[in-house]
Amino acid sequence: MADPLRQPPGDKLAPKAVIGRVSLYLRQLEASQRQGQPTISSSQLGAALGIGDAQVRKDLAFFGQFGYPGIGYRIEELIAALRRILGIDRIWPTAMIGLGNLGRALIKYRGFRSRGFHIVALFDNDPKKMGQTHSGLTVRPLEDLARTTSELGIELAILSVPAEAAQRVADQIVACGILGILNFAPVPLNVPPTVGVMAVDLSVQLEHLAYKVLNGQGGISHAG
Amino acid sequence: MADPLRQPPGDKLAPKAVIGRVSLYLRQLEASQRQGQPTISSSQLGAALGIGDAQVRKDLAFFGQFGYPGIGYRIEELIAALRRILGIDRIWPTAMIGLGNLGRALIKYRGFRSRGFHIVALFDNDPKKMGQTHSGLTVRPLEDLARTTSELGIELAILSVPAEAAQRVADQIVACGILGILNFAPVPLNVPPTVGVMAVDLSVQLEHLAYKVLNGQGGISHAG
Repeated sequence: MADPLRQPPGDKLAPKAVIGRVSLYLRQLEASQRQGQPTISSSQLGAALGIGDAQVRKDLAFFGQFGYPGIGYRIEELIAALRRILGIDRIWPTAMIGLGNLGRALIKYRGFRSRGFHIVALFDNDPKKMGQTHSGLTVRPLEDLARTTSELGIELAILSVPAEAAQRVADQIVACGILGILNFAPVPLNVPPTVGVMAVDLSVQLEHLAYKVLNGQGGISHAG
Repeated sequence: MADPLRQPPGDKLAPKAVIGRVSLYLRQLEASQRQGQPTISSSQLGAALGIGDAQVRKDLAFFGQFGYPGIGYRIEELIAALRRILGIDRIWPTAMIGLGNLGRALIKYRGFRSRGFHIVALFDNDPKKMGQTHSGLTVRPLEDLARTTSELGIELAILSVPAEAAQRVADQIVACGILGILNFAPVPLNVPPTVGVMAVDLSVQLEHLAYKVLNGQGGISHAG
């Protein structure tokens, strides 16, 4: 990643690394708020995450002017701003596609719902899974994706299908007008430039851990 | 992340972003090798991942001189080098701790075993789970962690316990001499500087996807 403040020309989006850190700042701010703290300094905000105060200020400055001289950041105000920036001040109706072990675990992952990602429909194309119920939702066949997407206003899809099926299912997702895909299938997806994809390969994180252990470096990294 | 080639003084490790991309290069090289390709250029290597050729060369130069003028990279040689660099030219005996939905899904996640991360023991402290068998392994109580770690030579732990239990279990892991923790619990861990931690918060990835969709930017990002 290049310097977060130096954007490639024509690209107004914050770099991935900055957005990842903003998610972590938000979690830290929420923890401080639960403890009744009204304001926080950039060094306090970064400390628990192992991030320096200059980096914190630079990251937040990407989105606007949030700090007050002599006060720091007002926690409630900064939480609201970061939620708006990340787009989690709203509900995202989300489809879960692929109900293998990982898909079934992800349905119950509490962190999604609490951030506004509501799984509203489940899809698989295994006839044995049709009609099964998980977390109150009935598994539907993939051929119902287009109709269900328009009925329920689905905007995002979590894709947890085998590698060999992933591109074909992604094509269906895109054809339905779904705007973003969180891809757990261990294969890159080809999608039109208007569709967002975040790829999650859990073995990549474990490789990075192995690298750190081999090189004798401890400490905390955030893969998010 | 700062420029990958500008390391903080005294820190010889490659930045997180570089290691993440090296994992992706390795996957791309393996795909090219399966198709019988003997060599690859930096632009071919980056193309499928949406990474420019200059970035590919810079990332690899971090670890040594791998390219040949007029030839590019020899795929077999570069695969071996990257596996050695990442530490996946060996077996990592790994413990899975916490057998909720996510833990049970992770046991079956094929991507771990194929990269050398062998889950050799399962732990939980729910009495109802004791003696259950998953993927041929029997669930053990957490109080057996120290003994099992030394018997089986466990080096890494995948931690998938509730947030409120995570620090306590992490302390047990550290006390057993385990060197690295892949943390799925949505809470930061305090560990000694000699222990590596990679934190995985899946809702962070979904937040980043929401940000991209909101800002009308599609394209592919790799969260790994």
